[in-house]
Parts: sequence; structure tokens; C-alpha cells
Amino acid sequence: MAKKPSIPKGTRDFNPEEVAKRNYIFNTIRQNFERFGFQPIETPSFENSETLMGKYGEEGDRLIFKILNSGDFLSKADQQALNAKDFTKITSSISEKALRYDLTVPFARYVVQHQNEIEFPFKRYQIQPVWRADRPQKGRFREFFQCDADVVGSQSLWQEVEFVQLYDAVFTALKLEGVTIKINNRKILSGIAEVIGAQDKLIDFTVALDKLDKIGEEKVKEEMLGKGIPQSGIDKLQPLFSLSGSFESQIEQLKSILSTSEEGKMGIEELEFIDKAISELQLQTANLQLDVTLARGLNYYTGAIFEVSAPKGVEMGSIGGGGRYDDLTGIFGLKDVSGVGISFGLDRIYLVLEALNLFPETITNTVKALFINFGEAEAMASMKAVKELRSNGINAELFPDHKKTIKQFNYANKRNIPNVVLVGESELQSQTFTLKNMASGEQQSVNLQTLVRLLGDA
Amino acid sequence: MAKKPSIPKGTRDFNPEEVAKRNYIFNTIRQNFERFGFQPIETPSFENSETLMGKYGEEGDRLIFKILNSGDFLSKADQQALNAKDFTKITSSISEKALRYDLTVPFARYVVQHQNEIEFPFKRYQIQPVWRADRPQKGRFREFFQCDADVVGSQSLWQEVEFVQLYDAVFTALKLEGVTIKINNRKILSGIAEVIGAQDKLIDFTVALDKLDKIGEEKVKEEMLGKGIPQSGIDKLQPLFSLSGSFESQIEQLKSILSTSEEGKMGIEELEFIDKAISELQLQTANLQLDVTLARGLNYYTGAIFEVSAPKGVEMGSIGGGGRYDDLTGIFGLKDVSGVGISFGLDRIYLVLEALNLFPETITNTVKALFINFGEAEAMASMKAVKELRSNGINAELFPDHKKTIKQFNYANKRNIPNVVLVGESELQSQTFTLKNMASGEQQSVNLQTLVRLLGDA
Repeated sequence: MAKKPSIPKGTRDFNPEEVAKRNYIFNTIRQNFERFGFQPIETPSFENSETLMGKYGEEGDRLIFKILNSGDFLSKADQQALNAKDFTKITSSISEKALRYDLTVPFARYVVQHQNEIEFPFKRYQIQPVWRADRPQKGRFREFFQCDADVVGSQSLWQEVEFVQLYDAVFTALKLEGVTIKINNRKILSGIAEVIGAQDKLIDFTVALDKLDKIGEEKVKEEMLGKGIPQSGIDKLQPLFSLSGSFESQIEQLKSILSTSEEGKMGIEELEFIDKAISELQLQTANLQLDVTLARGLNYYTGAIFEVSAPKGVEMGSIGGGGRYDDLTGIFGLKDVSGVGISFGLDRIYLVLEALNLFPETITNTVKALFINFGEAEAMASMKAVKELRSNGINAELFPDHKKTIKQFNYANKRNIPNVVLVGESELQSQTFTLKNMASGEQQSVNLQTLVRLLGDA
Repeated sequence: MAKKPSIPKGTRDFNPEEVAKRNYIFNTIRQNFERFGFQPIETPSFENSETLMGKYGEEGDRLIFKILNSGDFLSKADQQALNAKDFTKITSSISEKALRYDLTVPFARYVVQHQNEIEFPFKRYQIQPVWRADRPQKGRFREFFQCDADVVGSQSLWQEVEFVQLYDAVFTALKLEGVTIKINNRKILSGIAEVIGAQDKLIDFTVALDKLDKIGEEKVKEEMLGKGIPQSGIDKLQPLFSLSGSFESQIEQLKSILSTSEEGKMGIEELEFIDKAISELQLQTANLQLDVTLARGLNYYTGAIFEVSAPKGVEMGSIGGGGRYDDLTGIFGLKDVSGVGISFGLDRIYLVLEALNLFPETITNTVKALFINFGEAEAMASMKAVKELRSNGINAELFPDHKKTIKQFNYANKRNIPNVVLVGESELQSQTFTLKNMASGEQQSVNLQTLVRLLGDA
């Protein structure tokens, strides 16, 4: 047992400062979710394997953490697979449960299971950890939180308008000003594919287009050509590569590009509705930008597609994303439930706030005063004052041991406690308190009432 | 896929109302933990198996959920055990990680791993789920939250005083008045065993004594006799069974019973210190009671032992417990770190608050107003008002679809939203809002400013 203990790779311990900072983000998101009328649900950490398996593709199935059955799992295992040592085949017979891989599939399962208790449209949010057996790397963990808000049971575009405002509200509250909310629409992408004669290559087409930012126009064209999209079609894309100007002017250009596609025109109508509403309502600090190259999990989305990027100057992938999907619950047998939702990337938002020094200083010094311990009688007088402070909503504590004063001061320093209170023999006599500000070194002698007032204001 | 989806037995979905009620308890506990100077940490949901296995006894090892290794786990399995189909032996070679079983062992691991970054005494709290493969039954789940606060690195009895006050503060804040905080001390139990000549049967002795409440004096004596405690010793216990009166008078009686035991006398001293301090500081609504039969996980505790029971008239096991342990981190190689801590039983507290109807009504109607949707222009005017309300900290939303008014009213009712706001054609013209109270049916025509004020007060 001399070996220093450790934690599994890809997981993290969070110290008090980190928890406080994470909670600051969680609470801000949660408060705004509720301000917009979303209601919280929570689902179990593990689901029946059949609920999760097959929902995230082959790769996803591999990355799902499986829980070993309890008891003599071998005796109930698929004996043929066991004898053949076929791990793929044997898994389902020795593992019936698996850790949540995301919040979307459990949410779909929840909606179907509880459909008779739910009032639709159902606006739910969910902030819980998920687990993926991915190879850990910088910024990618095996356990991480997702923060999702979704509405199911309404096709109204006002939801999209709400989500744009919600992103704006959260990032404004976090003082992260100038984020860009990029928006696109699956129908626009389908329309373009139709116009250039690549309907049957929609995925190849959008995967290539999605890379425009990273690899540039020429390489995107090469990739499309390689995937069998004809040169004549790619030529028709030219106006798309030079789309520019405001949201409205890009829309005008799209109208001419997509004039022959009914689906494309519907996409334009949807984007126009959202843009018009947001122009009237106005955003506080975020910018809404049309980005016709935005695709994300295209197979999934059927209408609006969102992605949020950090303010200019901060190198960070997307810090949020989402979109509309017309058939979330179909996988569990409930048809025709349209949904739209967004998600916040906690870990990346954390890194951005850290990089820009945007965490409020106060979140890590919640204890306003440490009382120095000078012995039993003094400690008792201190405890009475501590009690009074607490009943006034002020976080305070007594150093538990009668140790050297310097050690107790060091403790206050390292804990980032801004004030110490000294109750020694003379204070005990005069029923006063010596309040010392740790930053300025200033100290003053006060009575209890003043102590409560000063620390309450601190 | 026609089969309705379900969740694993022993796990739960929480709907919005349940999450709100649980968060009310969590937040109250968290706020008081911080008021008392405790700092939050979080540890990963799964630990390396070697961190957990062997720490909870054989039964515990069986109840720990193990996670199957990713990839071809069979090829790396213990082939001998595999061929012999020995599930116990093979487990460690196909599963390296396991779900957290409690918060105490991960905390000990955390303290040892991060000992150089920690400022001692370390006052930490932790509110996270744990998992146990126990047979589910009423009130016992396979996934449940623990809420723990511990201090390590100080032997001061002021900590025990703090924990008594902390219990009082939390239950007072929850309006759960009249809980009983029972306290005992391992040294008292050891002292009694010494006095009656049962030092070598301390566990048997305390296990029997712990049942006094349930099975009565005669059966307890029988059990002790059966375990080989001599009749002469049991006779000496007589005064213990008739202990009565106040904390102080019970202490006086104990003094005479334990007059020949040094350890017993130390236990008395500790109890006296705590009782005296609490008498001076006074509790708000809880009662502190000496209970010399209280043992809990005796092997674990070395000093104070706490247990909290619900107010009289509510049938419920303990709703909290804890105590002092002198060697928490020894299992990971760090010696001589004394700790003391308490825990809150969330699920039982929830049931008690529900039974006594103590959840504030407001926690489930966070949305103050639903705006009825009468069409695009009206919805846009509504959205502007919604935005104004939100920027004043008021939770509000627009019904997303232009459906029949009765349907929208029903939605407000079912969502427990106390007000609806109507913006129809005439309101649009006059730039007013019709505010209707859902409970009283009263409605009034107001301007935006008044709307904000009225809903802000609601």
C-alpha cells in the first residue's frame, strides 16, 4: 500500500477551486434554462444496454462503458461465445447495463417511457455526466458533463428564436461577450445538393463543405470531385464560396442560388423568420451569423443547425451546438415527435473563461472570516460570534486547534479567506473583536454588531 | 422496437418536480456546508478497482459495480480462470475500474493523492451519487446520492461541536424542526466492555446493545449471554439500562459506572465538552441526546458517534449519521490523519419532508407567466415583453404554437404556471397586456412596466 493511489486515465479529481468555478458555470446555465421555462429532469447513470447499443453507430457501441453483471456472470454467459473466446459476442450475455454515453438517447427513452405524464411541448434541461471510452487527450475526457436543453412536441420556429436568445443570455451572464452563434439549416444543404445534382451524395457533399474553414476552397472542391460530384455541379457552387455581407444579403444571394429547389426555399424561409425575430428582439452581446458550410451531425438534424464559437482571439473549437431533429423518439417507437435543442460545452467554456480571466474572484473566497483560536474560553466566545455571523448569512469558521498564531494566519492565507478575527484575553474582557483584513493588514477593534455589519458588506 | 423502454431495476428517473425538490434539499445542505467553511471536491464516478476492492469487506466487494474493460477483454483475461470458468478469479483481469461505492474511500484516496496541495485541517464536502449492486427494496436504490462533510487533520473537539450545530442548521433551514441528534462515543462503549469484563467481545457486546430499542432489555441480555459474556458482567450493565434524565444527569450516572476505566473516563470528558459547548451555544430546533446504545459502524469510529432521527411521529430510520475515525487514510499509506464527518440521507429526508408537507410550494412553479400565442405579430410583441421580464430576473415563456386558447390554458395549468398573459389584437393596438391569475381567475389590463412589477412581486 506504499504505492501512491491514482485515478483512471481520462478522469479527474476536482479541487475546491475547480468545483467552485464549474458550479459557477453550471449555475449560470441552469438559472437561464429556468428563466426560459425549461424544467430539469435526471436519468440514471446506467441504462439497460439495449437502450444504448446501436444508437451511436459501430464506433459509439465500442466506446460505451459496459457494466459487468453481478454474481456468477460466467455461468450465465453465452457458452459458445465463451468457448470461442469471442468478446464481441459474449458481451451482451455478461453485461446488461451500460453507462450513459450522452443525454439525448436517455432523454428520448424518458419521453417515450413517460409520454402519458408529460405535458407537450416538453421543455426539459438536463445537466449530468456522461462516459465514453475514448482515447483521452487534451480537453477530451472519459467522464464529462453535458448541459442540454431541448423542446419536444412543437414545430414552432419560435423555439429556434428562443435558443438563439438563450445562448446570448448565458454567455452574456458569464461575461463572455462577442461569441458568434452560427446558424444553418439542413434544408439549405439539401437544396444546394439538389441544385448541383448531388442529392444522392448529400453526406459526402456536406462533409466536404464543412471543412471549408480548415482546408480552404480548392481542397474542398477536390474532395467533392473525388467523391464523384460532377465538375459541372461544383462550378455551380462558386457563388456559395463567395457568399458575403450581412445575414440578409447572404439570404438574398442564397435565394438566387436555390431558386429551383423547393426544399432550399423552405430552409431560406425558416432562416428569414429567425433572423427577422432576432433583429427585432436584439441580442445583448452575441452575434448571429449565417454559415452555409455548417453541418455538424447532419444525419441527425432536419432543420436548424447551431454552433457557437468563442469570441475572436480565443483558439477553441465550438463551445456549444445543437439543432432541430424531426424524429428523436422514433428509435423507441414513438413517431412524429419533433424536437430542437442545444448544448453547452462545459469543459471548453471553462478553459475560455480561464484564458480570459473571467471567473469572478469572489467565487473562491466564500468564507468571509477565520477566527483565530487562542484557547478554550476564547474559542467559546469566538464560536458565539461565528454563530451570529452564520445566522446573518455570512460564511465563517473557527480554527479548530489552539496552534501558533502564525500557523493559523497561514491557513487563512492559503484558504484565500479575506479576514481574520482575533479574540484573545483582552478582547474577551472587553467583549470586542479585532478584525484584520488579510490583504491590507489593517485592523480594527469592533463590537459584535459592527463585526456582523462589516463582514456582511465584505 | 414496440417494447416500451425501461430503466435498470434499482435506478430512477426524476421528473421536474422531483428534481426541484431534491435540489431544494441539496442546495440547503450545500449552503450550510459552505456557511460552516466546508469546501467542495468531486471525484470520478469510477475508480481503479484496487482503490475500492477490499475496503468494504467481502459483502462490499460483491456489491461494487465493475466496469468491463474496453476492446478484446477476453484475450487479456486470466486464461486459467477463463478455462476454469471461475468468475471470481477472472474479474480483476477483465475489469480494471469500478463505480464508486461510497464517498469516504474516494475521499481518503483524494487526501493521500493530493496531500501536498491540501491545507490541513481540510474541511471538505462532497455531494455525488454512489452505486451499489444491492437487492433493491423500498427506499433502497442501486444509485443514490450521498452528502458528506468531513474534516481531516485536526483532533479538536470543536469539530464535533460544529457538526452538531451543522445538523441543527440544515434541519432548521429545511423547516424540519425537532430532530434528535443522538451522540455516543466509542470510548464509552469500550469502557463499558472493559468494566463488565468483555473487552475481547466489544463487537458482540455493542451489536447486542445497539438493538436495545428494537428488541428490549431481556433479549439484549440473552444475546450477550449467548455470545459468552458472563452473567456477572451483564448484571453490572443494569444501571445502563435504566439511564435516564438529562444529558448531564446521564453523564453523572456514567461516571459512576465507568469510574474504573481510563478509556471510559476519556469518553465522558469528550461528551461533556461537546454538551457544555452546545448548551452555551444553543441549538435552534434540534435536540442533542446522549444514547449509550448507539454504535453504528463501530469498527470504523474511534471517538464521537452521531445519528439523527426524524421528529417524533415520523416513522423513518436515521436521516443522518457520522463520527470520528482516527485513521481514515491509513489504507492508502498515510498514517495519523484523524478525521470526523457526518452525512445526510437525502432519500429519507425527501420522504420525511414529503410526509410532513414541508416542501415550499414555490419550488415547483418557477415560471411566473405563460404568454398565450395568438399568431405571429402578437407573439412577437409577447416575446419582447418576455425578454423584458427575463432581464428583470423573472422566469417567463411564450407558448410556441398558435393553438386553441383552451389548450394553451391547460398547458399553463398542468405546468403549474400561476399567471397567463394575453396579447391579442386589441392589446397589440393599445400596447397593453392582459394579466390573468390562474388560481383566482382575476384579470387586469396593464402596461409593460406594471406587468414587470406585478410578476416580480408574484
